[in-house]
Amino acid sequence: MKLSFTKMHGCGNHYIYFNCFDQAVPDPEALSIRLSEPHFGIGGDGIILISPSDRADAQMRIFNADGSEGRMCGNGIRCVGKYLYDNGMVNGRTAVTVDTLSGVKRLELDVRDGRVQSVRVDMGAAILLPRDIPADFEGDSVVGAPLVVDERVYHVTCVSMGNPHCVIFLSEDIDSLDLARTGPKFEHHPLFPARINTEFVNIQSDGSLKMRVWERGSGETWACGTGACAVGVAACLTGRAEKGSDITVRLRGGDLNIQYTDETVFMTGAATTIFEGEIEI
Amino acid sequence: MKLSFTKMHGCGNHYIYFNCFDQAVPDPEALSIRLSEPHFGIGGDGIILISPSDRADAQMRIFNADGSEGRMCGNGIRCVGKYLYDNGMVNGRTAVTVDTLSGVKRLELDVRDGRVQSVRVDMGAAILLPRDIPADFEGDSVVGAPLVVDERVYHVTCVSMGNPHCVIFLSEDIDSLDLARTGPKFEHHPLFPARINTEFVNIQSDGSLKMRVWERGSGETWACGTGACAVGVAACLTGRAEKGSDITVRLRGGDLNIQYTDETVFMTGAATTIFEGEIEI
Repeated sequence: MKLSFTKMHGCGNHYIYFNCFDQAVPDPEALSIRLSEPHFGIGGDGIILISPSDRADAQMRIFNADGSEGRMCGNGIRCVGKYLYDNGMVNGRTAVTVDTLSGVKRLELDVRDGRVQSVRVDMGAAILLPRDIPADFEGDSVVGAPLVVDERVYHVTCVSMGNPHCVIFLSEDIDSLDLARTGPKFEHHPLFPARINTEFVNIQSDGSLKMRVWERGSGETWACGTGACAVGVAACLTGRAEKGSDITVRLRGGDLNIQYTDETVFMTGAATTIFEGEIEI
Repeated sequence: MKLSFTKMHGCGNHYIYFNCFDQAVPDPEALSIRLSEPHFGIGGDGIILISPSDRADAQMRIFNADGSEGRMCGNGIRCVGKYLYDNGMVNGRTAVTVDTLSGVKRLELDVRDGRVQSVRVDMGAAILLPRDIPADFEGDSVVGAPLVVDERVYHVTCVSMGNPHCVIFLSEDIDSLDLARTGPKFEHHPLFPARINTEFVNIQSDGSLKMRVWERGSGETWACGTGACAVGVAACLTGRAEKGSDITVRLRGGDLNIQYTDETVFMTGAATTIFEGEIEI
């Protein structure tokens, strides 16, 4: 059988999108493994299925390159918003909802010349309570707390955006860091019982926050939407940015804009269609 | 403008194919760099343009992922043969010719259920004369000659198939070799003035030749068509296989069948269409 697909990316986080309103995708776990492979498949970070939902404009299911199902993906959901609008599936509305395993997410679409350029996603409230992150620290939050890793003291701020993050602001150039060496030592640190994603951040002269991220289970990646949110939150908590303001976070794969309020975190960024394809499976 | 393309692979060597009989592809050097990139482009080892030729069924031009133009590609040309037949461009003929920067190559197509499964390519004569390879050795050929690399004596057989190869048969398991360490020491050895591609080979119990290849300028790759030819030739020259016989060479990306005669070397292997696509450039 033949399947139609669209290859899209958000900040270089690239997935294969299937419209399941008009086609069935059998065995998505196995298909994601096969199609994500770059030599014999399509290549990508996984597949995303866009299907009908009875409580939102669409449901998104995300399968990683190893076949496991993910709960949500900040870079992926922006592309789902663009897909729905550009393909005329939301009757030209720019406020759309997407059903995920982390609940229904609200998106605001920025449209130019009839196509979505960027998308603002309501990512939900930041979780700061250590036991909910989880991070094995005393108190109500972990803000600039000292943590010894590899015989060096780091000052860490911990935030969960559904998944746990540990944010570290550094004065030394993050481009010179050996993340392959340091990242795993944070990831497997005994104070983080569910392991941790770690963001290393430089404040730039223009006030933007340049970050590199080590994702648990994946290693260094070009972009992490929830990681960018955590960096924006941590900047506010440590007095490096103001709550409610627009914070630009620069990832290897592109820029994201973060806005942190007590109620929620908004993430805004580009969504890009790369190509359309058809594959015999 | 929109371009139609087909993603195909031969032994995992994967290119983006453009039919230039019915569309023009502007600035292929820049396009190859952009489209070969896996996150923001299509992903691949480069692009291949299939165009009209006045001396063959079609011309193939190959551009590597760095934008440089290649002369020929054994895995790529098999896919060109499949493309021409499967798309009805050779009126059902199974003997086709393809014009390359290394001359016109003859292909024999193996068709099942109306689709090409595998292709036999006449790769031309093997070059054994040291100065034509080039390899700075005495005599008419380099067969099992001792060469000291990294304080170890290797026995090397040198063959050019348009590009230079150095073949080494080993009794130890090639899977355990550290090619990233050893490969560059062959590549930049002073006896190979144009650098060299190096094949490390185990003879399997079924008589097949399992190889790993270090390609000059590219490092270890999953498949190298001319390298597989050189391995087949070297096996005959060193008495490990018989001239004229079918020799199975197992590469990381798949198997190739090699036949070595005094006049030419035939390479036979699968050619696979992965998907069809359309991209706005």
